Amino acid sequence: MKKKTGKQEVLSGIHSVFEALKAGKREVYQLFVSQDRTLSRVKSIIAEAEKRNVPVAFKETAFLDKATQFARHQGVAANVSPFSGGNTATVLKKIESGACPGFLLIIESLEDPHNFGALIRTALCAGVDGIMVPKDRAVTPSPSVSRASAGAMEHADICLVTNTVSVIKQLKQKGFWVAGLDAAGETPLFHADLTGNLALVVGGEHKGIRPLVKSQCDFVVSLPQEKGVTSLNASVAGGIAMYEALRQRSGVT
Amino acid sequence: MKKKTGKQEVLSGIHSVFEALKAGKREVYQLFVSQDRTLSRVKSIIAEAEKRNVPVAFKETAFLDKATQFARHQGVAANVSPFSGGNTATVLKKIESGACPGFLLIIESLEDPHNFGALIRTALCAGVDGIMVPKDRAVTPSPSVSRASAGAMEHADICLVTNTVSVIKQLKQKGFWVAGLDAAGETPLFHADLTGNLALVVGGEHKGIRPLVKSQCDFVVSLPQEKGVTSLNASVAGGIAMYEALRQRSGVT
Repeated sequence: MKKKTGKQEVLSGIHSVFEALKAGKREVYQLFVSQDRTLSRVKSIIAEAEKRNVPVAFKETAFLDKATQFARHQGVAANVSPFSGGNTATVLKKIESGACPGFLLIIESLEDPHNFGALIRTALCAGVDGIMVPKDRAVTPSPSVSRASAGAMEHADICLVTNTVSVIKQLKQKGFWVAGLDAAGETPLFHADLTGNLALVVGGEHKGIRPLVKSQCDFVVSLPQEKGVTSLNASVAGGIAMYEALRQRSGVT
Repeated sequence: MKKKTGKQEVLSGIHSVFEALKAGKREVYQLFVSQDRTLSRVKSIIAEAEKRNVPVAFKETAFLDKATQFARHQGVAANVSPFSGGNTATVLKKIESGACPGFLLIIESLEDPHNFGALIRTALCAGVDGIMVPKDRAVTPSPSVSRASAGAMEHADICLVTNTVSVIKQLKQKGFWVAGLDAAGETPLFHADLTGNLALVVGGEHKGIRPLVKSQCDFVVSLPQEKGVTSLNASVAGGIAMYEALRQRSGVT
């Protein structure tokens, strides 16, 4: 067994554990598998663990229920080192050394781990280079978020930042356009220019982007809504905006 | 109190109950409010109920927990008549008599009520005229789905259909283009023509669209995915496709 140093957490769920093993960004100390799980996907996880010399223990479902605090573990859990995340400076350096304009997602005061997980999952699919999240506010990259992201979190560069406003100012100095996403935004999404170095700011489920952060955005986009009876879910709205950016950036008109 | 006829169900959650009252598509027999809830949003619901002569009962939280089978009721529940939904013939007639091309969503073998709710919510925002769902397969328009849709389900024309393939054939005869959405689709979303009379088919979370249904689609679109480590959530993917259709249909290039 690998040496355990410092804090540990328990990941659970097929995708979350599998992607943590594949990403190799954090230590996986031990894999726990429910004795009655013989799904082929579970077998792939066991094979992946063995390839990486991670010890595998077969346990009763009750053990996994308790270890994961009754999360939807699907018969799979793992003791891992804490999420290591990313670093803003490193993400920016990577963008600067690459051939394509940068694409960042800034998540601001989100509350629901499912929305956070869905946004991370979509961000990875849409080719986002890095995700900035406030260190001390709202949701953080927890095992629940990893599960909600279907394991995408394990591969993502998620930077915990102390002050969102400072980060936005820094990005603007580096030549990024900062676009807020808000139901009251003055620029319709499909009329906004989302090419070039771009940071998209997504706000919380209930209150949107905080006024101080919004005032720092170069422009604020809103999604058209045909019938005034409801609003879009935060993770769906964020997903639509990220894919509109992807569409524009890939040059499709 | 209004006369109760036939089956009843219990709606729960602030948005779901409020939108059911406002939509007026089903009978609301009685409103239950937790005694300790004095949120302004709860007051609005009480006012709406009184306006419609719906009796209001203040109860202990334990009563609401039990009545809603421990759903996230937010201190609000209501006894209502079953969801009435829509009817394919009526939806098509409405489209024919209108000035704009029709836009339909066909949901096929979806399993998760949250994904179903999110798709309904987005469909309403994207201006979809009607949603077709198989009567006997997978998720149906339940109180959980209403809650997951933030009440959007209460306003939507959701048609329960016996046979998806027959509906697709009927729509094609009426001049609709039927576009499937599938990770293996041969047409990249942003290259597809989604203008005119359109029916978008969204498949299940795990297996996508069934082969028999897929073979009936005029074309199958896929979303570009930058990094091969994960796929999009079904409701996010559906939301992105609906909004790409909305973009094209509103003439923005």
